[in-house]
Parts: sequence; C-alpha cells; structure tokens
Amino acid sequence: RRGEMARSTQLIDNEVFRAFATYTAIVLLKMMLMSLITAYFRITRKAFVNPEDTASFGKGESAKKFLRTDPDVERVRRGHLNDLENIVPFVGIGLLYALSGPELSTALLHFRIFTGARIFHTFAYLIPLPQPGRGLSWAVGYSVTFSMAYRVLKTVWLL
Amino acid sequence: RRGEMARSTQLIDNEVFRAFATYTAIVLLKMMLMSLITAYFRITRKAFVNPEDTASFGKGESAKKFLRTDPDVERVRRGHLNDLENIVPFVGIGLLYALSGPELSTALLHFRIFTGARIFHTFAYLIPLPQPGRGLSWAVGYSVTFSMAYRVLKTVWLL
Amino acid sequence: RRGEMARSTQLIDNEVFRAFATYTAIVLLKMMLMSLITAYFRITRKAFVNPEDTASFGKGESAKKFLRTDPDVERVRRGHLNDLENIVPFVGIGLLYALSGPELSTALLHFRIFTGARIFHTFAYLIPLPQPGRGLSWAVGYSVTFSMAYRVLKTVWLL
Repeated sequence: RRGEMARSTQLIDNEVFRAFATYTAIVLLKMMLMSLITAYFRITRKAFVNPEDTASFGKGESAKKFLRTDPDVERVRRGHLNDLENIVPFVGIGLLYALSGPELSTALLHFRIFTGARIFHTFAYLIPLPQPGRGLSWAVGYSVTFSMAYRVLKTVWLL
Repeated sequence: RRGEMARSTQLIDNEVFRAFATYTAIVLLKMMLMSLITAYFRITRKAFVNPEDTASFGKGESAKKFLRTDPDVERVRRGHLNDLENIVPFVGIGLLYALSGPELSTALLHFRIFTGARIFHTFAYLIPLPQPGRGLSWAVGYSVTFSMAYRVLKTVWLL
Repeated sequence: RRGEMARSTQLIDNEVFRAFATYTAIVLLKMMLMSLITAYFRITRKAFVNPEDTASFGKGESAKKFLRTDPDVERVRRGHLNDLENIVPFVGIGLLYALSGPELSTALLHFRIFTGARIFHTFAYLIPLPQPGRGLSWAVGYSVTFSMAYRVLKTVWLL
C-alpha cells in the first residue's frame, strides 16, 4: 500500500511537473469560466438557441423571439473556441515537455508566459481591446507551445 | 527489456490511475459517438455543408438543395461542442488529480459522477428533456471538474 | 537533484512513450497549423468576424463590408473543428494506451496510421478531394483511436 502511494506521487514530486500541473489547472479553469460567461450573456441578453431553454418565458411566439443570436454571446463563444484551439495543444504538448526534463526556470518561463498571454487574450476579446492586442497575445501563446513542441521533438524523436 | 516493461506499467498498476483511465476512455468514446450521430442525421435528413458531400445526389441544382442546415444536425453538433468544452478539462485536470494521490473511493466518486452526468447530459440534449435537466447535468459535471482542480492546486501549487 | 532528473525522465525513456510523444506533437502541431491557414484566408479574402479586426481598413461602412463569411474560411474552420473532435480523443486515449504497455511495433502502427490519416484528411478537406476520400481518412483515424481505447479498457478496467 505504501509502495503504491509512493509510486503514484513520483511525478507529482517533480518540480517541473508540479509547475505544469499548476498552470494547466489555471488555464483549464479559465477556459471553463467561458461557459459561465456565455450563460450569463444568454440569460441577461435573453438570447438562446434551444427551444426548451426558453420554455420558462412562456409558450409559442412569446418564447420564440428569444431564440436568436446576440453579438455579445457570439463573442464569448468565439473566445471559448479560440481557447479550445490553443489550450488543448498547450496541455498535450506541455505534458510531454514537462516529462522531457527541462530546467525548472525555463519551464516556468514557458508556462507563465502562456498563461499570462491567454488571460490577456480573454480580456482583449471580451472588452474588446483594439487590435493588434488580441492578435499579439494569441501569437505569444502560440509561440510558447511551438517552442515546447520543438524541445519535445528534439528530445524524444522516435518516428 | 523487462525493466523497461516494468517501468512503463508503473502508473497503470496504480488503482486510482486505472480508474481514471477507465472513465476517461468511456467519456472520450461517448464524445466520439457524437460524430457518428451527426453523420447519421446528416445522411437521413439530407443536410450537408460541403458541396463535395452531395455529389452522389446528382449535379447542379438537384444536389445544391441538400446544402442546408437541419435542426436535428445542429442540435447534435451543439452537444458535441459542449462535450469538447467540458470533457477536455475533465481529462486534463483528472489526469493531474489522479497523480496527486487521492483516496481511491474519493477518486471513484468524482469519476463516476462526472461520467454519469455527461451521459445524462447527452440524452437530455438529444431527446430533448425539458430544462433544467440538461442544465443541472452540465452543472454537476462542471462541479466535479472544479472539485478535482481545487485538490490539484492545493496539492501541487508551484507558481 | 540527479535523482529527481532520473525520475522525471523515466517515462520519456520508454520507447512506446517516446513514439507517442513524437506523433502527438506532430498531430497537435498540424492542428495548430489550421489557425494560421484560417488567418491567411481571412486576410487574403478580407472576411472577418470581429469589428475591431477591420479597423485598419477604415471606419464605418467601408470597414463593415469585410465583416462577412467566406466559403474558404469556413472550410478551414470546419477542418479545424474536425481536428479538435478527433485529435483530442487520440491524445487522451493514446496516452493511456502508451502507458498500458503495448508492443512497440503495434503502438507505432497505431500512431503512424492515425497521423497519416489526419494529414490526408486535412488535404482532402482543403483541396477539396472528391468523397469518399475525406470520409475514409476520417474513419481510419476514428478506428485507430477506437482500437487503442479497446486495449486500454481491456488492460485497466476498474469501474
């Protein structure tokens, strides 16, 4: 039993892996927050997509008018999809990167810049900030993931 | 060679990790099923989006009328996207959670509730069930992932 | 310090895991490429979705006409979403599969076929090739992930 516990906590004792776990949890929670923001705008803007979601507003035509798109809702949804497109590669490649044995300081630099860039990206999308604010924060996060992928491939390459 | 095999099966010998692997495989297969359901509705409702997909129905105007959206197809696609938005955080955070050394019974509780909630969510979306059935099942899955993230951050925190 | 390094590189020394890491990095980079292709088509077709993205084209009506959908942009976006729907399960199930101790040759077969199928799928979508080219390449990748999930569940099953 103790041996099993020891084994199971090996990875989690590694500092680079702990840093990866911390930042991954943060960016995934940030991505999950987009669902709540979407729900908030759907309810305050009264803009729904499923007929069953408007049933509490009454029946027939009175409820049907709430089946519509709203610019604010669509904006949050685009931000959410952009998170999926960028945070999924970060988590997948970041895990392999954390296991490839990088220096802790280098790894922290990657994780911190990515996380900061994605949080800035969300603000830039939702406020919205004038371009190229959103574009640059997207490019920074993208480059960090690319840099980690380069190290992973250089370290593990087995085709 | 034997040493390598032994090493490679360490994680998989851990009971919490085996439970995580089982439930992750189940929810990811469930998510993959959405592609088949989308394909089924596209073919039976004759509602396609790519011109090359309607070529077998003839050329020109006769095929063009099948390039359209269908409410049933769109409903499955929304369920599929909702899966991506919720199952991706579960898999990422759940992996870190499984490595953080939780009690097997606590871990099983998290994995079982999440998996049950997401399977219910799919039925609630596709039938569809009246609200708040779908909303509640979404919230249950969301809360499970949040609870796992809390434990991960408490255990590994290294910023 | 050395002990920690040794521990952190255990998984990465395993050949099956190295192969998984290589192919996962490749398919995730391929998926990330879709963002660049979308950006390329948005700029060359002048088809944007956020008002702040067209500010450099002038103000008012002159910029508003670039807020539109373009068939080429939408095609790349569908390919990107299809990648998310299929590459996410591959990465999640593939990780568990790599840890379940398969033969290296069997694992390489799975990873190579999946990666080849997804690269073909992207070309089939973007050129586009006549069906069933795209459909078949989708089905091949889908089947590979399904085969890995079967082995994972057979090996680890703990409900």
